[in-house]
Amino acid sequence: MKKSLLSLVGAGPGDPDLLTLKALKCLERADVVLYDALVSERVLALIPASTLKVYVGKRCGQHSLNQEAINELIISYSKRFPHVARLKGGDPFIFGRGQEEINYAKKHGLYTEVIPGISSAIGLPTHYGIPLTKRGIHRSFWVLTATDQRHQLGKDLDYAAQSSATLVILMGTRKLPFIVEKLLSHRDPYCAIALVQNGSLPSEKVIIGQLQDILELAAEHQFSSPGIIIIGEGVKDYAAISYEVIRTERPLNTPLSMIRQPMAS
Amino acid sequence: MKKSLLSLVGAGPGDPDLLTLKALKCLERADVVLYDALVSERVLALIPASTLKVYVGKRCGQHSLNQEAINELIISYSKRFPHVARLKGGDPFIFGRGQEEINYAKKHGLYTEVIPGISSAIGLPTHYGIPLTKRGIHRSFWVLTATDQRHQLGKDLDYAAQSSATLVILMGTRKLPFIVEKLLSHRDPYCAIALVQNGSLPSEKVIIGQLQDILELAAEHQFSSPGIIIIGEGVKDYAAISYEVIRTERPLNTPLSMIRQPMAS
Repeated sequence: MKKSLLSLVGAGPGDPDLLTLKALKCLERADVVLYDALVSERVLALIPASTLKVYVGKRCGQHSLNQEAINELIISYSKRFPHVARLKGGDPFIFGRGQEEINYAKKHGLYTEVIPGISSAIGLPTHYGIPLTKRGIHRSFWVLTATDQRHQLGKDLDYAAQSSATLVILMGTRKLPFIVEKLLSHRDPYCAIALVQNGSLPSEKVIIGQLQDILELAAEHQFSSPGIIIIGEGVKDYAAISYEVIRTERPLNTPLSMIRQPMAS
Repeated sequence: MKKSLLSLVGAGPGDPDLLTLKALKCLERADVVLYDALVSERVLALIPASTLKVYVGKRCGQHSLNQEAINELIISYSKRFPHVARLKGGDPFIFGRGQEEINYAKKHGLYTEVIPGISSAIGLPTHYGIPLTKRGIHRSFWVLTATDQRHQLGKDLDYAAQSSATLVILMGTRKLPFIVEKLLSHRDPYCAIALVQNGSLPSEKVIIGQLQDILELAAEHQFSSPGIIIIGEGVKDYAAISYEVIRTERPLNTPLSMIRQPMAS
């Protein structure tokens, strides 16, 4: 019996044009695609109609399938099909459990490959013209989640606040007040911060503010999770890109705060 | 007179299949492509033969064109052509000076866009099966350069060593002894470390070791710059991917250390 192949594929942040060529070719060849909640409809539309598509998504708070069940499903499909693709949002090895799926598949004798994707942590700032490093100011960037497995703020956030790194925080929008409080103990209240929801998709929402006013702006513009948080000087370059932005009417200390929302159609 | 467009495009780590669809479409449409030393020959081969290709690369130590000259060149070409693409290795907003080029172009009235690429800092670990985050061990990852503008080890490296983050260090292979020394003051000598040179290309070389033996391995296998350094438990998963690896003959404390080199052809 021939060994089947498991391809673990990164779907990128949402825009199908941000898939890699390698990912697209894989999706066109695979017999079955198991996909997550974070994979956009527009990416799914690239999969040939004849390909079996299986939703195995988990949503924060409501687990539809646990990891063990997904692992078993991969093995089960690999017995029926020579090529199983597992499609995950962003990059499959960043804050996913892609490694566990690869290890499980290997243990069961499958060939495996990993196809990188544009991680939303990295690709979305670039997409919006926000450089993660800036000569002489931010010489590094740190990508972290706000909470640990016990849903507490992680200790790394302390080091992060003290460092000069641009910070990209995933899975943190519901902890925003705690994150802002922690950051304010080490960084300037005028420090620039961006909140990005549905990045790169037509429903995108980007809120630009400062540590001192971002909570108010988030409430005012009904920012909800999931989303990513970017903290650093590069956020100020957002406006440098040719996007249409809606300035908030409310007077602010600097001309920095603005919001981008989908245009009325 | 119509405004020209500057597209700042990420070329990814080297393998042309790791370009995004958006980047490929842009390269096919552009009238002229200004490219860096870090863009691989195989990516350049995707650009139509009729497109003007201009090398503006800088190499560590030997600057062929300074940033100001590149900025001027963009403006100069934009006066002759409606669509200028500026192709940079990896992601154009990570440790490049992409933002400066965008700002300069905007100041001169050009339309601008930024097309994300797979950063080698993120994409190469994934490509080699090295997860940057691991549940319960590394809940974050930090991407940094080893040296600051005065060529000294940056202060962030101190915080980085103390944190639980997986570290990805760019432009650091020539400072490897200093980096290892700094890390050993906070992390375990058995801590896993990978060195990647020419990642994703046929000439790739990957050395896997521990903080205690990596200097010896790097010397033995003639590891040279440029390359990336990855420090974290995820490095141990390297072997989980179906790559051919050559184990070093020298006895080691653990079965972890191994090397992958191009096969003799």
